Amino acid sequence: MTTAQESSSLGLQRSRPRVVIVGGGFGGIYAARRLRGVDVDVTLLDRGTSHVFQPLLYQCATGLLSEGEISSPLRHLLRGVRNVHVALGEAQGIDAVGRVLTASRFDGSTFELPYDYLIVAAGMRQAYHGHDEYIQWAPGMKTLDDALAIRRKLICAFEMAESLPTAEERRPWLTFAVAGGGPTGVELAGQIRELAMHALANEFQSIDPCEARVLLFHGGDRVLQSFNRKLSAAAQRTLDKVGVETHLGVHVTDVCETSIETTAKNAARTKKRYGARTVLWTAGVEAVPFAAALANALGVKQIQGGRIAVEPDLTVPGHPNVWVIGDLMSLNDLPGVAEVAMQGGRHVGGCIARTIEGGTPDRKPFKYRDLGSAAYIARRHALLQAGPIRMSGFLGWVSWGAIHIAFLAGYRNRFGTLLNWAVTLASRTRRERAITYGDPESARQPYTDLTTESIAVTRPER
Amino acid sequence: MTTAQESSSLGLQRSRPRVVIVGGGFGGIYAARRLRGVDVDVTLLDRGTSHVFQPLLYQCATGLLSEGEISSPLRHLLRGVRNVHVALGEAQGIDAVGRVLTASRFDGSTFELPYDYLIVAAGMRQAYHGHDEYIQWAPGMKTLDDALAIRRKLICAFEMAESLPTAEERRPWLTFAVAGGGPTGVELAGQIRELAMHALANEFQSIDPCEARVLLFHGGDRVLQSFNRKLSAAAQRTLDKVGVETHLGVHVTDVCETSIETTAKNAARTKKRYGARTVLWTAGVEAVPFAAALANALGVKQIQGGRIAVEPDLTVPGHPNVWVIGDLMSLNDLPGVAEVAMQGGRHVGGCIARTIEGGTPDRKPFKYRDLGSAAYIARRHALLQAGPIRMSGFLGWVSWGAIHIAFLAGYRNRFGTLLNWAVTLASRTRRERAITYGDPESARQPYTDLTTESIAVTRPER
Repeated sequence: MTTAQESSSLGLQRSRPRVVIVGGGFGGIYAARRLRGVDVDVTLLDRGTSHVFQPLLYQCATGLLSEGEISSPLRHLLRGVRNVHVALGEAQGIDAVGRVLTASRFDGSTFELPYDYLIVAAGMRQAYHGHDEYIQWAPGMKTLDDALAIRRKLICAFEMAESLPTAEERRPWLTFAVAGGGPTGVELAGQIRELAMHALANEFQSIDPCEARVLLFHGGDRVLQSFNRKLSAAAQRTLDKVGVETHLGVHVTDVCETSIETTAKNAARTKKRYGARTVLWTAGVEAVPFAAALANALGVKQIQGGRIAVEPDLTVPGHPNVWVIGDLMSLNDLPGVAEVAMQGGRHVGGCIARTIEGGTPDRKPFKYRDLGSAAYIARRHALLQAGPIRMSGFLGWVSWGAIHIAFLAGYRNRFGTLLNWAVTLASRTRRERAITYGDPESARQPYTDLTTESIAVTRPER
Repeated sequence: MTTAQESSSLGLQRSRPRVVIVGGGFGGIYAARRLRGVDVDVTLLDRGTSHVFQPLLYQCATGLLSEGEISSPLRHLLRGVRNVHVALGEAQGIDAVGRVLTASRFDGSTFELPYDYLIVAAGMRQAYHGHDEYIQWAPGMKTLDDALAIRRKLICAFEMAESLPTAEERRPWLTFAVAGGGPTGVELAGQIRELAMHALANEFQSIDPCEARVLLFHGGDRVLQSFNRKLSAAAQRTLDKVGVETHLGVHVTDVCETSIETTAKNAARTKKRYGARTVLWTAGVEAVPFAAALANALGVKQIQGGRIAVEPDLTVPGHPNVWVIGDLMSLNDLPGVAEVAMQGGRHVGGCIARTIEGGTPDRKPFKYRDLGSAAYIARRHALLQAGPIRMSGFLGWVSWGAIHIAFLAGYRNRFGTLLNWAVTLASRTRRERAITYGDPESARQPYTDLTTESIAVTRPER
């Protein structure tokens, strides 16, 4: 720890080459770590204070794990990397000629981060495809706040159903719709059924939580299209078995407080509306707003949901000192998964290290090594696809657990997560079912003047 | 679990005597448990879905424990008590003649709970003494939402200080003011210094977290006035040692975004203003709004912050079938502590059980057995006062830990809490430092159009 220098808290007066990393997800963290001991000053900028382990976010949303168990404070994670400085703030834009990134603090004031090398790992956010009004009814699955909002919606739906006198009134509260049949959607749908069948099964008198209907809507012709057909079919069988009702080949075309509408993708374009008080949204992602400012400043176009196309070495065309990695980069149709971001981060960190050490720009092309992918379906069922290996069912599930524990940051998170998993498996309960209302004032008066809407997703005054 | 009966989900058609308990805190839980197996139908109504273990709330606020570790879902806690039904809702008022309690669901609709016996254990909330506008700057310490808001304020204050260029600008962000020198205030103040000195100490570059000033303001002439003078003095020595600046004999007379004003209680009435971006409020409690409706319906007056005076058997004068227990009851100046609520709950449960079994009203007076009290001051320092036993320092601290673990609900919470304590003691880190912004939409755009105010305490649209 160094004592504060009055005029420069952000490295403005340093003489070593300056690396700025935007985003503390997998890409940013791996880039920062690769730069440990390299003769550069690194600033990692993030909108939040924690690195979130997104592959387990759905377990926080469904009451299995706490926010702390699936995240690590960025400062704590990088405390051993002496040349990395963490800054809380949101990237707003860059001056590509002057090589300065502008960021804002949470009070709206701005500060500048000069850079010699810029690594953009800002990620994607949930996309509502022109229907941002859905967000109030259908939270996405990208942030810890999303997870807590989903937890609140799920728990409150069962409570609301319990308190209503007729089956007809209870039905929409016991119907849970999930938009999107990728890993996140499948995992959420499976977890809701498990929550209902195990943790909640014996705790209600008027309703039977096991009657909870979970509807999974997907545009493709099979769930988990990133896996091969055989694994995808195995996942579908498991979903059928645990009671998730899967609807393939449909688009969600409307979401409101009480229902969701789908339209078939075939020629008939049949519309259907389902009464559902809980809708969760995992159908697609889009670039964060900073990507547009970046593309504009660099004179490049955004493609595929706002992604930025990169050269084989992950630099932006015409800008050999600016890299885009992770979900936000577009290269050879690489998927938006953690592994691509990690390897991209390590690759760029390596390029910068060799450039510094060798004195000439290192333009080594990025080679992605597909280590495989895994998806949790239900208790004792997961998929694993890695090189020639194909696993489903129990074996896939054990491997899935081992892989996720290995990649969680820190021993305490690993141990805490293992403990919670063991307890949940053995006792069928879930420890993190506490709900919060979003702020002290609405918690103080959660009923007096709030509508269902604002309980479901409370929104701050603007 | 019984299948739903269309016309009655809340016991309206039952023939056994009906007991309604308002509040799932210590009083409500202990009353419900005492009624296990008694020939009555019990409905426990609460505004939330969890029983919160309030004595450890400050540890959730300061990043030591998760929400799930200091709370238990009411349904889970009472799942073994077959004649107890849990209902989510807020008590609005009663018809004392018709013996019906009216409650509201979170969508604003209402439902009725007829009762033969009514136990009111609705508790107190943080009091701002006519200055409810302080709440936006100074969250209280009564709910899980309060804890998460405090966690966000604390973490963001250090981050904000780190990003500011001058010592002058950083100072108010590194000044933390706590109003109230009771156990909650003392515990919070001590924890903030420990957070700064241990968990955060080596993670910042521009600031030294250890420089964080913690100001504790108290109206009395010594902190922890419920303990004897010697223990109180020992606590003060520990507070001095860990660096909490205690100001006695002062009232807080103003709180705003950037500062707090105090006025001395002596004749001079000297006013002082301290620049502080973080103010936490533990100075006093007041009855929840339902207490006024209850007092009105029963024809009694509220005293001492809205409390309701009860007969020696804890019934409301003139209403032998209505009891008030816990913090909300006023009897012989008994303190508002968990132990009084627990024993009150057990007492009333016993009275009802004997009334049912004996056929005549049981009016046994309540005898409070003071089992002592404990307060955490800092690492290796706590107070314990029980009968002739007086402990402070390390011995008090060990006893404090044992007592709190014993009273936590459930083995998993106990084990998880012990584990987190052990890890924090050994490694000086804190596992639950993840912050949330209150809802998905402000998390999506936490900087774009939010002011410091709305980050600090986000408020829903009304």
